[in-house]
Amino acid sequence: MPARRLPTLEDVAARAGVSRATASRAVNLDPRVRSQSRLAVEAAVTELGYRPNRAARSLVIQEVDSIAVVVPEAEDRVFADPFFASMLASITQRLADSPVQVLLAMGQPGGRQKIERYLRGGYTDGAIIVSHHRDDDLSGVLHETKLPAVYLGRPYAGDVGIPWVDVDNNFGATLAAEHLIGQGRRRLATIAGPQDMAAGSDRLAGWRAALDGAGLASDLVEFGDFTSASGAAAMERLLERAPELDGVFVASDLMAVAAMHEIQSRGIAVPEQIAVVGFDDSHAAQLTRPPLTTVINPVGELAGRAVDLLLQLMKGEAVDPVVLQTQMVKRTSG
Amino acid sequence: MPARRLPTLEDVAARAGVSRATASRAVNLDPRVRSQSRLAVEAAVTELGYRPNRAARSLVIQEVDSIAVVVPEAEDRVFADPFFASMLASITQRLADSPVQVLLAMGQPGGRQKIERYLRGGYTDGAIIVSHHRDDDLSGVLHETKLPAVYLGRPYAGDVGIPWVDVDNNFGATLAAEHLIGQGRRRLATIAGPQDMAAGSDRLAGWRAALDGAGLASDLVEFGDFTSASGAAAMERLLERAPELDGVFVASDLMAVAAMHEIQSRGIAVPEQIAVVGFDDSHAAQLTRPPLTTVINPVGELAGRAVDLLLQLMKGEAVDPVVLQTQMVKRTSG
Repeated sequence: MPARRLPTLEDVAARAGVSRATASRAVNLDPRVRSQSRLAVEAAVTELGYRPNRAARSLVIQEVDSIAVVVPEAEDRVFADPFFASMLASITQRLADSPVQVLLAMGQPGGRQKIERYLRGGYTDGAIIVSHHRDDDLSGVLHETKLPAVYLGRPYAGDVGIPWVDVDNNFGATLAAEHLIGQGRRRLATIAGPQDMAAGSDRLAGWRAALDGAGLASDLVEFGDFTSASGAAAMERLLERAPELDGVFVASDLMAVAAMHEIQSRGIAVPEQIAVVGFDDSHAAQLTRPPLTTVINPVGELAGRAVDLLLQLMKGEAVDPVVLQTQMVKRTSG
Repeated sequence: MPARRLPTLEDVAARAGVSRATASRAVNLDPRVRSQSRLAVEAAVTELGYRPNRAARSLVIQEVDSIAVVVPEAEDRVFADPFFASMLASITQRLADSPVQVLLAMGQPGGRQKIERYLRGGYTDGAIIVSHHRDDDLSGVLHETKLPAVYLGRPYAGDVGIPWVDVDNNFGATLAAEHLIGQGRRRLATIAGPQDMAAGSDRLAGWRAALDGAGLASDLVEFGDFTSASGAAAMERLLERAPELDGVFVASDLMAVAAMHEIQSRGIAVPEQIAVVGFDDSHAAQLTRPPLTTVINPVGELAGRAVDLLLQLMKGEAVDPVVLQTQMVKRTSG
């Protein structure tokens, strides 16, 4: 393979025997170019392996080539949590009839610097930021680059001038807590998510508000990072702290399934002795024994709305944040 | 948000009060630019949200910004198979000390056209093509664009003029078959992978060669697509066809674990009545009861070597295909 030296538009024009202006118009699909010139330019582009300057092309043909889905989490985290698979499938499905290539950029060593460099580089037409944590806020670089972007999941910092879509996490957690209280459960615990994420802090706040409103103690809180292992460990801590607890709201199904196994492994009956309520309504929630009562996280709709907002931004339209309502799916775990 | 009109280098030069040439040199980190001019240009770049033309930048600073890992499979497939998570983690790990952003481009509706368009667009410096099938051969577009690229997994068409790394699938399957034959198993079956992939056809060929060499019938072949569900279904078909079979080589651990469950669900003992040997040595292979005897697929090394080849290509070095040797991990399933 020869040393790399990218061919320029001038090279293409020379090879095709046309002016640079004609080559430029041909590359940019300008209808004014005679088909003979266009064929010559297309042949030269192929022969030389010329790759058009995407910025220039965007100026001429207002067309979206690719969007990046940025997930600042390590691969193993992303692959272990079905939330991301559903979310990505929904995003690509929403763009099925478009020419847009969806690219997934996951967290990696030096991730913050790498992704900022990538977003600054002009390689993508837009970004959807998912599962963002306080410390990987990209709103600064997104503002600087003016890259159309949408947060899937409210930014931790609140209004950072970039639109977002989210489910009403606070309300969903309140529903879960009120459901447990309505069953007559009185010693309630929660396994909360990461507090440097809106989904983590909002779900904890909603649970607390409901317990406070009912005059119940809200001291039984342990934290997980939305992984299965962290859910089991948090449940173990809760059972040590309060063997008498009779209900637990777990901030994600992945953690809830592990927590339920942890409870059952000690011979404690679900839901008779301890009711378990999750959050997500993932596929796994239907497979557990007993099936998991949970709060719906409308991943498909969140993803679809995020894509719609992004396309509106690209058209220069003004958009507002979107908050989707939610409800519980009552099965038999609680 | 205002309608989108990407700022040009001319805009930057005007805003910074420098010549276009100076702006270009500053953007391209040319040391000859006085720091005062550079600061002015950097300020203008930030204010205008200017995104440099990546082709031009690559000409000046020979530096890799991003590589695309192309997996022409649907999201749910990619997320369900731990092979991809390990592979991606290894690729990003290999690039941990570099500024390179790794992007995952998965199959999607209209995938072939989208990914070709993306690869032609000049948004990435190189590509690693994984899990490629006969019908999504990208070698044509890779040749045309002269984009540095490496196949992880030998191209189905063989030598397409693009380097590749692979494990010796044929030899690995032969090891598995000879292991079963060496145990005195005489009625052997195989669950083969997709025959439009080298990994699928090579593993079947290696198994057949070993059985033929031992004078055993090699008629018991059922096919799966490397998914768990397809492994269970194929095992069911094999048991219907030949209840007397006493050993099965399954071309991936994901299919092997499902096949073993299918066998055990009928009250048939593994390995006493039927020995099961997988391929991959994935994490799951250690968790089954009995633990799975399997052939090592050195995913981490494959990924690392693929990155190394790609970086060599980018430096203009000539590279040859890499075939990694393999061996069995003998556990107790067979």
